[in-house]
Amino acid sequence: MAQTNGTTKISYDPNFTSAVINATGPNCSPRLREVMTALIHHVHDFAREVNLTTDEYMAGVSLLNWAGQMSTDRRNEGQLVTDVIGLESLVDEITYKQASAHSGSATSSAILGPFWRDTPERRWGESVVDKVPDDGKVAWVYGRVTDAATGQPIKGALVDIWQASTNGLYEQQDPDQPDHNLRGKFRTDDEGNYAFYCLRPTPYPVPGDGPAGKLLDLLDRHHYRPGHIHFIVLADNYKSITTQVFDNETEYLDNDSVFAVKDGLTVKFSPRKGDTKANWELKYNISMAPLEEKGAGNVPSAPVASY
Amino acid sequence: MAQTNGTTKISYDPNFTSAVINATGPNCSPRLREVMTALIHHVHDFAREVNLTTDEYMAGVSLLNWAGQMSTDRRNEGQLVTDVIGLESLVDEITYKQASAHSGSATSSAILGPFWRDTPERRWGESVVDKVPDDGKVAWVYGRVTDAATGQPIKGALVDIWQASTNGLYEQQDPDQPDHNLRGKFRTDDEGNYAFYCLRPTPYPVPGDGPAGKLLDLLDRHHYRPGHIHFIVLADNYKSITTQVFDNETEYLDNDSVFAVKDGLTVKFSPRKGDTKANWELKYNISMAPLEEKGAGNVPSAPVASY
Repeated sequence: MAQTNGTTKISYDPNFTSAVINATGPNCSPRLREVMTALIHHVHDFAREVNLTTDEYMAGVSLLNWAGQMSTDRRNEGQLVTDVIGLESLVDEITYKQASAHSGSATSSAILGPFWRDTPERRWGESVVDKVPDDGKVAWVYGRVTDAATGQPIKGALVDIWQASTNGLYEQQDPDQPDHNLRGKFRTDDEGNYAFYCLRPTPYPVPGDGPAGKLLDLLDRHHYRPGHIHFIVLADNYKSITTQVFDNETEYLDNDSVFAVKDGLTVKFSPRKGDTKANWELKYNISMAPLEEKGAGNVPSAPVASY
Repeated sequence: MAQTNGTTKISYDPNFTSAVINATGPNCSPRLREVMTALIHHVHDFAREVNLTTDEYMAGVSLLNWAGQMSTDRRNEGQLVTDVIGLESLVDEITYKQASAHSGSATSSAILGPFWRDTPERRWGESVVDKVPDDGKVAWVYGRVTDAATGQPIKGALVDIWQASTNGLYEQQDPDQPDHNLRGKFRTDDEGNYAFYCLRPTPYPVPGDGPAGKLLDLLDRHHYRPGHIHFIVLADNYKSITTQVFDNETEYLDNDSVFAVKDGLTVKFSPRKGDTKANWELKYNISMAPLEEKGAGNVPSAPVASY
């Protein structure tokens, strides 16, 4: 427990952390006890290791309160703050690998991010680009959703996608974009196929007007994310998939501000011929792991995607 | 990096945490780099140790966002959430001991807590009890503020105090209490003396309507704090003091829900004779450490209190 501050060694109460942990009552759930025991240990050790001052602690509390105050049903700034220190991406890795250990799947998932919101279903093959920006490149994205075990097509799967516009903003951040622009849910047809038009994705900065942007500035880091499209894929009796696909020609692939890029998530857009509505296309197949009756432990959805 | 989940061993990317830390730019302040490096290490280790799932992570983010959304200039719920896991009290110990290592002082400080708010100055000896509750016991609290080095009285020091009423609520939580009830700032006179009437403090629960109360419930812990009076003492050229005094006859002295009770913070109220306004009294002297020119490092105020 001895701590140093320059040449001064200081001892802190060696019983404090165990006293806090032992305050937990007998009716706490075993899992919450496990999680909170580890959290309290690490938070206390962190404070002692750096000799955290009251002023620094209060600055941290203010930053977290600020994040909550900025959060609405259209924006999750608390999530974004944890994203810039890599926590959501790490938790995604943990959850995915825990699930994969049971299902045997191997393709990477990716973080949800703070900009998903519920959106109406669109027609098969419809464009999510309700307003094409002058510098926008329209792409036809299509593929088949199949059962990872049997290879059979999954009819009626829901493919929920969203992306930022070329100005770096999601529609809910941008009064100049129509409501639900660049966002849509699509059902697969009888052969398991889905398709839609969207923009070829471009890099954008995470919002700089809140605590996540402030933290990036203080850490002397850039705000940018590589160009990507978000996917959630849902089907009855299958584990849901949350992922992102990254254009392999985008900037920031190797220094994403929220650390979401992983092996197997980059995709190649190809030129598209004979379509007056799009000059680019991307084929992206998705295979879904069936829900298991047993053996999956208490981990949620197992993402399995291929292309 | 090998983790276990039942019988399944899972390895997580061994380079992920260092990649996040190394994203910090060259112009980050050395202290922030030190603090954030330790924070990222501990947060990531915590997530890997417990195999934190996406659902659990999102529950934590929602809880922190909720805390921010409940916080106003009258309430700091983010602070209260950290209080119930002992962080503010630990940081208080760290800050105090860091300061004491230089000033040589030894009396304990205590946490600010989330219910301080700025309040007008009152007259010397005035009562802060603008409305005496039926079950309230009024006490005369008085003492002298002196220089810890010379023992000389400090004239014009500001003694800022606040306490909950017998119903367990601070005035800003309670529409039935007058504005600034049980709260006041007092100046010491030429001999360094201060005095006021207040209530003999009583235990109360921390607010149960937000995430801190929710967390206490989930942890199967009670919500109560032992009866106490908050003090902040300020004087030009002296280190400020933030502390609490606990009635040595109160309940919950050994299981404060925010872990603020420390050695040297308990006080004894005595019966008071010949005063129609109060049946109890407390003498509480305060000695303040002079601000040092050098050697105090970057730690804030050094609390020094005696009674």
